[in-house]
Parts: sequence; C-alpha cells; structure tokens
Amino acid sequence: MAPHDRSMVSAGLEGIVAASTRLSLVDGERGELIIAGYSVGELAEHATFEETTWLLWHGDLPSSAQLEAFRSELTAARVLSPATAALLRECAQARLDPMDALRAAAGTISLQTNAAAGIVACMPTIVATYWRLRNGQEPITPRRDLGHAASFLYLLNGQMPDLEQVRGLETYLNTVVDHGLNASTFTARVITSTGSDLVSAVVGAIGALKGPLHGGAPGPALDMVFEIGDASRAEAFLRKKIEAGEKLMGFGHRVYKVRDPRADVLAKAAERMYTRAGDMSLYTLARTVETTALQLLEEYKPGRRLQTNVEFYTALLLHGLGLEVPLFTPTFAISRVSGWIAHALEQQRANRIIRPQSEYVGPLARRWVPLAERSNPVSV
Amino acid sequence: MAPHDRSMVSAGLEGIVAASTRLSLVDGERGELIIAGYSVGELAEHATFEETTWLLWHGDLPSSAQLEAFRSELTAARVLSPATAALLRECAQARLDPMDALRAAAGTISLQTNAAAGIVACMPTIVATYWRLRNGQEPITPRRDLGHAASFLYLLNGQMPDLEQVRGLETYLNTVVDHGLNASTFTARVITSTGSDLVSAVVGAIGALKGPLHGGAPGPALDMVFEIGDASRAEAFLRKKIEAGEKLMGFGHRVYKVRDPRADVLAKAAERMYTRAGDMSLYTLARTVETTALQLLEEYKPGRRLQTNVEFYTALLLHGLGLEVPLFTPTFAISRVSGWIAHALEQQRANRIIRPQSEYVGPLARRWVPLAERSNPVSV
Repeated sequence: MAPHDRSMVSAGLEGIVAASTRLSLVDGERGELIIAGYSVGELAEHATFEETTWLLWHGDLPSSAQLEAFRSELTAARVLSPATAALLRECAQARLDPMDALRAAAGTISLQTNAAAGIVACMPTIVATYWRLRNGQEPITPRRDLGHAASFLYLLNGQMPDLEQVRGLETYLNTVVDHGLNASTFTARVITSTGSDLVSAVVGAIGALKGPLHGGAPGPALDMVFEIGDASRAEAFLRKKIEAGEKLMGFGHRVYKVRDPRADVLAKAAERMYTRAGDMSLYTLARTVETTALQLLEEYKPGRRLQTNVEFYTALLLHGLGLEVPLFTPTFAISRVSGWIAHALEQQRANRIIRPQSEYVGPLARRWVPLAERSNPVSV
Repeated sequence: MAPHDRSMVSAGLEGIVAASTRLSLVDGERGELIIAGYSVGELAEHATFEETTWLLWHGDLPSSAQLEAFRSELTAARVLSPATAALLRECAQARLDPMDALRAAAGTISLQTNAAAGIVACMPTIVATYWRLRNGQEPITPRRDLGHAASFLYLLNGQMPDLEQVRGLETYLNTVVDHGLNASTFTARVITSTGSDLVSAVVGAIGALKGPLHGGAPGPALDMVFEIGDASRAEAFLRKKIEAGEKLMGFGHRVYKVRDPRADVLAKAAERMYTRAGDMSLYTLARTVETTALQLLEEYKPGRRLQTNVEFYTALLLHGLGLEVPLFTPTFAISRVSGWIAHALEQQRANRIIRPQSEYVGPLARRWVPLAERSNPVSV
C-alpha cells in the first residue's frame, strides 16, 4: 500500500467478515449460539464430546458405526511419544506456565502424527501429564475403555470418575468447542491458509488462547465468590467493588449484549453436578452473587447491558470437577482444539491465503549513516 | 453476525488494512520496498543483521555502544537448553521436515527465555543443530566471537566462513527481514493481540511460513536452472514449459507488478559472491535463464507483467553459500523472526485484539436425534 493512499485501518478487524462458516453462529444481540445447526443447549446436554467433534468435522452427527470407529481412533492415539513425555518433565522442572507447556508439547505431536484425531486425542494426555508432573506425581497411563472426557479426569486423578462428573465435563467441552472467529480460531485459519499443517495451526492457536485478552481467564470470577464467602456479604462487597471502579469478573462480553447462552447451559450443568455430588452451599452462594451482581450492575450502569458471561459458570463447573484454576485455560483448549481443526479443515476446502494490507506511517528516504558517524547517546 | 445480515466476505482479507506500521512499506506498483525508512538496497548492502534487527525494534540504527551491548546479548543467548537439544535429536531420528523441527524446537525456547534477543539468538543454532543431526553429524558449540550471520555458517559447517560468504548471507538476511503484513507476520500480530508472549507469536509465525503458499519455496527456481544446465538449452526448455502451461518458478509475485526490488539486491550480492569465491558459470547460466524467461513471458503473456521474484536469486545466493534446498525456508525464518518480533512489539504498543467476524452459512434449528435413531450408512 503506497504511503499516500487514503486508507482506513480496520483496527482489530472489527466488523470485517473474514470467512464463511458452517461451524457456528454467534448472535450477540439475541444471545444465541448455534453449533453446526444445533443451539448450544440442545447439543451440549445430549452429545458426547466425540459426537460434537465429529459433527463439526463432518457436518452431521455420526452413525453408531462411525462413532465407534472414531472412538477407537481417538483411544488408540492417547499415548504420548517418549519425546513429548520427556519434554513435559523438563517443562515441569522449569515450572513453566501450563499453557506454555501445552503449546510446547503440542508442537511435538508432529513426531507422532499430523492427523486431526491424533491431535485431539493427545491434548488431554498432555494437560494431565503436565499437571501431575508439576505436582510431583507420576503420569497415569491412558486406558482404552474410557471416553474422551472420562479419560481426561482419569489421567488427572488416577481414579475412575463418576458419571455426574463425566457428564459435567462433557457438557463444558461441548459448550465451548466453537465460537465464531475468535482470535485463536482465526489464528488457526491464517496458518492453514498458507497450506501449512494441522499441528502448526493448533500450536499457533494455543499461543493465541494463552493471551489474557482472549477471555480465557475464568479464575478471577471464582476467586470473587470465594472472597465473598457468605451470601449475606455479597451486596456490600459488590457495591464497594463497583464504586471503586473495578470490573466484576465474570460479567460483560464483547459480543453478547444479553445473557451469554453458554452461561445458562453451564449453570444448569453445575447445578446438576453440585446437587448430586458437590458442595451445594458453594453453588447457592454463586447464584446469589450472580443475582446481586446483575442487580447492582443495572443500578450503577443502566443501559450497559452487562450480563453473566461464560467465565462465571465455567469457573464454578470446573471447580466442582476438582480442577484447580491453572487448569481452566488448558481444559478450554482440550475442547476448542476440535473447533480449531474444524475451521482449519473448512479453510482447506475453500482456501485463499489470508494476507491483509498494512498502512505505512514510518519515515521515508533515509540514507545510511556509518556506525562511526552515528550520534551515540550512551558514550557521549 | 446474524444469518440474514447481508454481509460481504473479504476473502483472504485482500485490500483490508489491518494495521499501521513503521516497519516496512511494500509498493508493488513502483517495485519499492522500504524497511524502517531505508530502501531495501540501501539497508541490505550496508547493515549487519544485528543493526537491521535493532533498527526494526527501536526505529533507528544503534550507536556503537548500543550495538556492542546488543551483540553481547545475542552471543550470550546462542546456546540451546539441554531440553531443546534433546528434542532436536528426537526430531532428527524421526526425520522430521526441517520447518517442523524448527517450529517444535522454537516452542521450547520458553524453557530459557521469553525475550526478543534470546529468541533471535536461538534460531540459527536450532536450524544448524538440526541440519547436522539430520546428516549424522554432531552439533557444533557456538562461539562468542562471531556475528549473527557468521555464527550460522560456522554452526552449519564447523569451519570459519570467509568474509564474502558472511557478507552474502548478511545481505540476504537484511533483504527478507520484513515485508508488510504477509501471512506469518500477520499470524504473529494476531497472537500478540491477545496479550500472549513473543515465543507464542514466533512459533505461530513459523507454522504459517511453513505453508507452500507463503512463497517460501525457492528450491524449484534453482532446480530449473540445474535442469537447463547450459545456456544454449535455455530458450527451448523454457518455451516447452510455457507452452505446456507450466508455471516458471521464480517469476511473478502477488504484489509486485514490476521487478521485485529484493531480486536486484540479491542478484548483486550473488554476483559479488560468485565472482570472488564461487562457480561463476552457474551465475552466468542463471542470468541467461532469467533474461530468456523474461523475454518469453512477455512474448507468451504480454501485459501480465511477470517479473523475476525474490525466490530466483534467493536460491542462487543460498546455493552459493553452500546451503542445501531444505535449508532455504529455515534460513528465511532466521531472518524474518526479527520482523515478526518487531511487529509483535509494535502490536503491543497500540494493541487491540484482532477478532474479525464470520458469516454463518450452515443449517439452523436442528433437533437432537439419539444415536440409535440415526441413519447408519456404514452398517445398513
């Protein structure tokens, strides 16, 4: 782009439509999320994660035979290569952030496979192996008789998870699997658009998901609930926070101007799980905090339409599953990888290299100055 | 984006201005490339790669003291961590593509550093270490008394390179260091826009550069010159190729409609190097092939303005340096990493998350069908 073109920079590419997709529809005004034709509630509550992944990759739910074959493919690919396992030990020794460890280890999947199913299969093993090593525990060997969600919990804890837990995790994985052209998904599409491979796309996407602005930080929402501690303190605590100009974590979303449809699905899943197997008082407290926060946000910021977002109930649900806060974003990645790959495959089918323009605002016509003649602010 | 908005998809984001930059200006109509204010010819012929990198990161050429401090920082960070070295051995045993090995190993730089200089310093060591291991040779330990370009040649060959070679490589590294919002640079910016770290940005960018559509494939241009073998056969060979509808590798560029300014810089560097230290007959043959190809392209495709691109002379220059074809794209990465990081730093300074929209073209209002009730094309 020549320097004197009167161009307009589309900062953040907001409002620019960069792809057509059959994968998901995010309707922020209506508070709707459609995943491959199903409302997120309809899909998340019924499907196994294997079915959701197949649906995204093939456009339709699998038949029994297809599902069985796909499950076998995934279970067969769960064991990490010795090189990946050794790298995770080094990462644990260096006490790397779990997302850095995931990104580094995912990059070594190329030693085993470039196949979509193989990549998805390795992700929970990497996350769980790293978590155990970080905590001084030996990794667990994957079993072949467990579904994808159950396997992750087993690899984390070394115990067979109960059905409620598996259903809770499965609902979470289905809920966050795809969400339009968020930054990590867009990264996967840009990388794929050069003709690169799926591992490269996934590794780039993990790097993008790691960034705090991606919205993958559900920890603070839960911290706030714990800090409040008792329902009777909720109103005073939240008033003080809002009046101090602080943001309430877990509320507000760039796209959704009504309640994030994913929050409802996760709230229901959390309620079911806490009712049968968890600390019901925590669940009740969280609901009180939510109700109070929404009332106060409407009181202090009328018309801003700040609503509960996906992070609030993600935190509650994952905590109920026994996951600690540093595992929240890696667990998000275990789900979203199926969406990233679905977008990569879609990009491959109708590809055009993604290469925007830039506007040059720097100097022109500079002439070389030899080193000896440069002003030297340090030594003068 | 709601399904019935009448949106227009900007395929490939062509013509969309996604960033303001002070780093480079690509003027395809005039055949100009400006890097931080200097024409590519002015910069590439004078600067060391350390100066070019500093220029991109700081906006001005370094003073003597700044350059000395930067050189020390780079030389001190050249040695790979044991974990990275061990991973490269595994990659060599698996005979991974050199770009996959580079991407995987670069992901482990987080074990040592997240700093810009540290990342740039490690890249040549990774590429050279992997190349030697792939060829059954032990890696060379980095020396502290060599500049960045000389160090790469030393780590590859275990011999002190001569000055002509170093100058040739340095000119190449300066020439391809930055080039607007190409797909790998854009990837680095998208990842950075989430608040992620430099290693994540670089690893994503390597994954994008790997793709054959990125234009990082200078090997075939040289293969054609070798296949022609003698100047007297050039015209007949090229006529046959064009008449068969084949593309001439090394000619034509998506952006440049006149001669790629980088081709001139690299042609001059190649001439100097071949004249003093190389196989001059290969250089002469290449020039004849180029001249003949340009005449024939004008004859067969008048008005298409197909010109020699950067790949043609990249191949000739890197071959003259003794680099084999699989090293061409990794060597490109050794240069471009400074540009990727410069863009990441620029993105950080005026950040907004890069998150375009998508247009949903899939089905709506699907209802869940239990597994047993789905049609089963495989078992029926």
